[in-house]
Amino acid sequence: MTTHFGDRLTEATLKKEAAVCVGFDPLIQRIPREVSEAFNIEAIRDGDCWNRSNRESLANAILAYGRGVIDAVAPIVPVIKINIAFFEPYCAEGIRAYYQMIRYAQDAGLLVIGDIKRADIGHSTIQYAEAHIGGVEPDPAEGFAMPDAVTVNPYFGYDAIRPFVEAARDRGRGLFVLVQTSNESASEVQGVMLSNQTTLSHHVAGLVQGWASASGLVGESGYSCMGAVVSPRDVEVSRDLREMMPNCIFLVPGFGAQGRTADEVSTCFKDDGTGALVSASRSVIYAYENVRYQGSCGSDGWQSCVAKAAEDLVTSVRTVLTV
Amino acid sequence: MTTHFGDRLTEATLKKEAAVCVGFDPLIQRIPREVSEAFNIEAIRDGDCWNRSNRESLANAILAYGRGVIDAVAPIVPVIKINIAFFEPYCAEGIRAYYQMIRYAQDAGLLVIGDIKRADIGHSTIQYAEAHIGGVEPDPAEGFAMPDAVTVNPYFGYDAIRPFVEAARDRGRGLFVLVQTSNESASEVQGVMLSNQTTLSHHVAGLVQGWASASGLVGESGYSCMGAVVSPRDVEVSRDLREMMPNCIFLVPGFGAQGRTADEVSTCFKDDGTGALVSASRSVIYAYENVRYQGSCGSDGWQSCVAKAAEDLVTSVRTVLTV
Repeated sequence: MTTHFGDRLTEATLKKEAAVCVGFDPLIQRIPREVSEAFNIEAIRDGDCWNRSNRESLANAILAYGRGVIDAVAPIVPVIKINIAFFEPYCAEGIRAYYQMIRYAQDAGLLVIGDIKRADIGHSTIQYAEAHIGGVEPDPAEGFAMPDAVTVNPYFGYDAIRPFVEAARDRGRGLFVLVQTSNESASEVQGVMLSNQTTLSHHVAGLVQGWASASGLVGESGYSCMGAVVSPRDVEVSRDLREMMPNCIFLVPGFGAQGRTADEVSTCFKDDGTGALVSASRSVIYAYENVRYQGSCGSDGWQSCVAKAAEDLVTSVRTVLTV
Repeated sequence: MTTHFGDRLTEATLKKEAAVCVGFDPLIQRIPREVSEAFNIEAIRDGDCWNRSNRESLANAILAYGRGVIDAVAPIVPVIKINIAFFEPYCAEGIRAYYQMIRYAQDAGLLVIGDIKRADIGHSTIQYAEAHIGGVEPDPAEGFAMPDAVTVNPYFGYDAIRPFVEAARDRGRGLFVLVQTSNESASEVQGVMLSNQTTLSHHVAGLVQGWASASGLVGESGYSCMGAVVSPRDVEVSRDLREMMPNCIFLVPGFGAQGRTADEVSTCFKDDGTGALVSASRSVIYAYENVRYQGSCGSDGWQSCVAKAAEDLVTSVRTVLTV
């Protein structure tokens, strides 16, 4: 695995004509009844304490759900983003399921972004990088794998980025640095006004472009193995950020359940239609809860609702790109 | 467990006359030979891939080392900070060891800070909070426990803090928000100059004090269950931050291997000697590599070197406080 991540990602989105990523943020309370019943988790999930057997059941239910989502969306989208936060409550058993799900997704032909949002001082970040995209690989016989890329937090500056960059460069993997996130309170920190009359997001964008364009990191596609997480909160700002980071692929959260519009999202792409990967999570993975999909897909079960929602997502993003 | 975390921490430091925390950041390459030989890890650690049995051995070696450190320092210091980054490379087996080490430390009478530095949008941070200080407790029969407090990253604003605050308040636990970190490149982001001529660290400090002083969070000691990570990089700035966050206990990294001086550290305390917890990691946990300690403690083995270094750390901090 030495092909460049920016090139692999660009090629994968062009091949499926889908600059789209499905985010997997699985709440145990919302997994499909067919799955929760098979693992008998109703009685466990609200318990006073969990033992290993309880955690094993819950983690296995999430893994089964994840595999079902992968089967449904792999023919439609090129990338899945798996959020480790939703596995950590199940302790060791959750982490095992996280790495197993990554392997299953890669075997299905998907690129995988491990949504880990880690950062620490360099000495400690080396450990995070080894655990997630570098270090000793898991034994393939065990059904685990590391993701193709991860998300990281910029608050520590480059010390917390470098170990991920080195692992990404050496293994053909990638990273996305948080620049502008999709949550309501993001502006409390990211939107703070600097002495040069731009915001902290602009400042971080400048840093990210500098890091991303360093020697050896930019592939034949013109994109670096380092991308940026940019939620388009304001069209003007998104346009600025797009211009400031020409070598970065944007991972664009917030389309779907979080309400970002097509106009907002379109500013994250370059004029040639490359440079962004639009991510939606809840609107796709919980499509079976949506009456819009239940009607048309009911008889085929929850997976066909998920597939239909993924198709609709791809169509929406294609429409954005041709307007 | 409903006693207030700020009160528990203040009481624990006064009782041991030691405003000191030992940080556990265990590199597998540096664990004592007695431990590494017992787990036969020399042959494993540089392998091409690790299977479950390999990871089990490595995680168990780190756990054995951690228990040895706890036995050595528990009579001397009130708090241990366990960095999960150093457990994650061992996948599920590492996470199991992390929670087991927390339990062992609490059984030895230590308060435990889980150094996890997590943050995400609120929807995802709820999961992190449940995994680490809230949610369903692990079955006590299994020898796991959650830490008394965790570290969190402010880049998302309050959305990424709230779930930890709610868990902390309800369970008598705590959190420390990163304000100013100890690494070299921290100033690239945290030191950026704002339009009001202060730095981002000052801005985050103002936010943290606002969050920490909210109704129901401040204990009888006057300290909130929310503290701040403040590495004293500049005496003037530390003094500002100390004044800006009267309700926050400072977790002060960087004393020891990272080179912060007594003068710098002293500004993190209030005049009454409360309000800060000085943390040192490598200078204590690897004391057996230091000729200074090898000479005096050689015959008693590595643990007595660690104990002696912890005593020296406590003495240094007492000296800071009486100057």
